[in-house]
Amino acid sequence: MSTPSVSAELAKFVATFRWDDVPEHVRHESKRTLLNFFSVALSACFDPTIQKAAEVYGRFSSATQATVIGRGQRMDILAAAAINTMGANVFDFDDTHFPTIIHPTSPVAPPLLAWSETEKISGQDFLLSLILGMEAECRIGNAVSPYHYARGWHITSTCGVFGSAMAIGRLIGLTQQQLVWALGSASAQASGLVETLGTMSKSISMGNAARNGIVSALLAQQNFDGPAKPLEGVRGFLNVTADNADAQSIVTDLGKRWEVLNNAYKPYPCGVVLNPVIEACLSLSANPELLRHGLNKIERIELTGHSLLRQRTDRPHILTGRESQVSAQHAVAVSLTRGRAGLAEFSDEAVGDLSLKGIGAKVCFVDDDAYSVDAAKVVVKIAGAQPIEVMIDMARGAVGRPLSDQEIEDKVRALCAYGQSGIDPEPLIQAVWALDQSNDVGQIMKLVAGAAK
Amino acid sequence: MSTPSVSAELAKFVATFRWDDVPEHVRHESKRTLLNFFSVALSACFDPTIQKAAEVYGRFSSATQATVIGRGQRMDILAAAAINTMGANVFDFDDTHFPTIIHPTSPVAPPLLAWSETEKISGQDFLLSLILGMEAECRIGNAVSPYHYARGWHITSTCGVFGSAMAIGRLIGLTQQQLVWALGSASAQASGLVETLGTMSKSISMGNAARNGIVSALLAQQNFDGPAKPLEGVRGFLNVTADNADAQSIVTDLGKRWEVLNNAYKPYPCGVVLNPVIEACLSLSANPELLRHGLNKIERIELTGHSLLRQRTDRPHILTGRESQVSAQHAVAVSLTRGRAGLAEFSDEAVGDLSLKGIGAKVCFVDDDAYSVDAAKVVVKIAGAQPIEVMIDMARGAVGRPLSDQEIEDKVRALCAYGQSGIDPEPLIQAVWALDQSNDVGQIMKLVAGAAK
Repeated sequence: MSTPSVSAELAKFVATFRWDDVPEHVRHESKRTLLNFFSVALSACFDPTIQKAAEVYGRFSSATQATVIGRGQRMDILAAAAINTMGANVFDFDDTHFPTIIHPTSPVAPPLLAWSETEKISGQDFLLSLILGMEAECRIGNAVSPYHYARGWHITSTCGVFGSAMAIGRLIGLTQQQLVWALGSASAQASGLVETLGTMSKSISMGNAARNGIVSALLAQQNFDGPAKPLEGVRGFLNVTADNADAQSIVTDLGKRWEVLNNAYKPYPCGVVLNPVIEACLSLSANPELLRHGLNKIERIELTGHSLLRQRTDRPHILTGRESQVSAQHAVAVSLTRGRAGLAEFSDEAVGDLSLKGIGAKVCFVDDDAYSVDAAKVVVKIAGAQPIEVMIDMARGAVGRPLSDQEIEDKVRALCAYGQSGIDPEPLIQAVWALDQSNDVGQIMKLVAGAAK
Repeated sequence: MSTPSVSAELAKFVATFRWDDVPEHVRHESKRTLLNFFSVALSACFDPTIQKAAEVYGRFSSATQATVIGRGQRMDILAAAAINTMGANVFDFDDTHFPTIIHPTSPVAPPLLAWSETEKISGQDFLLSLILGMEAECRIGNAVSPYHYARGWHITSTCGVFGSAMAIGRLIGLTQQQLVWALGSASAQASGLVETLGTMSKSISMGNAARNGIVSALLAQQNFDGPAKPLEGVRGFLNVTADNADAQSIVTDLGKRWEVLNNAYKPYPCGVVLNPVIEACLSLSANPELLRHGLNKIERIELTGHSLLRQRTDRPHILTGRESQVSAQHAVAVSLTRGRAGLAEFSDEAVGDLSLKGIGAKVCFVDDDAYSVDAAKVVVKIAGAQPIEVMIDMARGAVGRPLSDQEIEDKVRALCAYGQSGIDPEPLIQAVWALDQSNDVGQIMKLVAGAAK
């Protein structure tokens, strides 16, 4: 019996699956994730990482085909896709595919959006390519998890290049064989290290994932060949970057299970394990009893949750906004004090707010692995008073308690304002919800062009 | 005691080492390797892999700053560096750093050559940058060998990006800190899989190594930051891509041992383990005794050598020129029959020559690990006659028996003719030997521009 080729089977699925066969709730989820993508991309238009990258990438842009979101700037499709991917991910506030912790939309949507400015693409073709690209990306991620990330691979970057290649490959009509070759050229370009997290160079591999996926597809269109089994081959992507990779899982139930349904959108710009803690603290910030005593009377703030909560977020001494995104001490202090938990609350400015340090110092952890990572209990102890307790069984933003359409819209509005591009988010929101009816997706990019500063 | 930072120490060396302190034989070797680089780059100008890559990369080239060797074509420095790197390596006929099997010059020389077309660079600054870039590249390769390649990483691609980044970083005068950041952005872009060997997609990661090294250096120049320990960090390049990496070796005896001296140039476009076999067969092809009997009288051709010879080259059934480069059966047959062993003898055309199959079928192997990989014995057995035997103790092209300057010049002449660019190699050869006296390296690229076809 010959070994079935996983790469070929995946390529066949990407080449042939039809929009008509995509379930309605999967279609709708693809619009939700696109809207969430725009929210985060619009938040970072003028972030220093994006500014510097745009300066260098702009020097080597060959054309002005495609919109760099929010900056009033146009570049060729490779550079625009790279910068837009970096922007959507720079705060790690983009979507999260829970089984892998991939941020799947960031490396896939920007290539498709850039391409749709070069020719007229229908909303259905666009969304189908987005869904299939994300499906390939997340399934490859599943096959190498959890070893791959634990080893030190930045999984969104390494798997993102496959998502971009498959999405663009489908959009431009590659054959099954050409899609296998595109997987091969993508496999040769898969890179990104966990060591770079928290620094600007994390964004390089993100931008490359988007950019190099496009290049892989365009080379394949020229019949630029690659190995027969780029994924499952003896020295292919799966075996080289993971021990005990599960190649077969990539093609099990294709078209039946959809990974986009395992994707969730963050309500707060923080590590997802902080979601229930922040939700509890936002509720406490308006608690009449606590307001009557005043925050300065707090003696102790006890966080009970899964041990991962403590392991990943017990960071009392932080210096930057980026570090604050994974600091329980900061998250508790800022959300109790300000009653908000947006990007401004996890910025360098917020970390510099010395009034928060005293409250953060009251935080302590109680490990209880009976809690899921979506749950937490926060108990505030005040001298001479009853403890005040808030229990969150399943936080907003969990796969089981996703943000509503309305909440995603509000995230677009809030992050668009934060990014200071001056863009009106309302026409964008309307356009994304109606995208499956559009006959020219590229028009949407006019709504997010913005102006140079 | 704080852990010494390997990345910082390497960066300091690259930032500060002076031309005056480079030993004369190291300087001379840098010119030899550059000449060898031009020979292979000129051989491949119109190879199908390069044609297709140039078509796609050319679409996204922003300028005509830099020469694409031999094609009468100019692109921006990123695209030109990528294509020239692909060209120099496409036949695997470029230099070989024996401890790692890295082809070190291909990803480092093209970025420097492209840059030297954008501003006036002296020959000494150029050669120093080349030497330092190769040194960083090969030392990082040493630190992850042999695990890294055995795991499936295409080591020239993965380490080449560091070489390019350090070479360009030195040329443009980055500080030590900026060079550490450049190592960080390079680490995020290190990719390339052994699975792609023998296909066009191998060339993608090679081109990326050159291209992305430049990008890493230019971003660092904008203070685009990265991790403090991109190489030796817990989730940095060394630990993620190798078990038991020897980080400290990267900085041991910097400026005292030179890796360019462990680099050798191939006399034949084949796996280096075939060198002694081919040398023996070329000698046999002119053997009067064998000529008198005729090749059709051969009963058996016995190859005695290190077991790696058999393991890597026992390939009787091959279909392409690329496969023939690692087939002992083909190498023996073609060099005995034609008395030559150049690119033409390892092309698709040569593999299609059915007269060779009969001779190849007579080949058998005798493993003897007392042989070094640079040695082999070839015994030809003819019915009713004494066996004819040739022993090669150390093949041409070994580090211990390097090609002479004259032989490298002849390689330039032969490969330049093979590539059919119409370029006159003589002024190029003269210019490379005199490069340390040049005040404008970019001029050399006019000698290899060629004409479009």
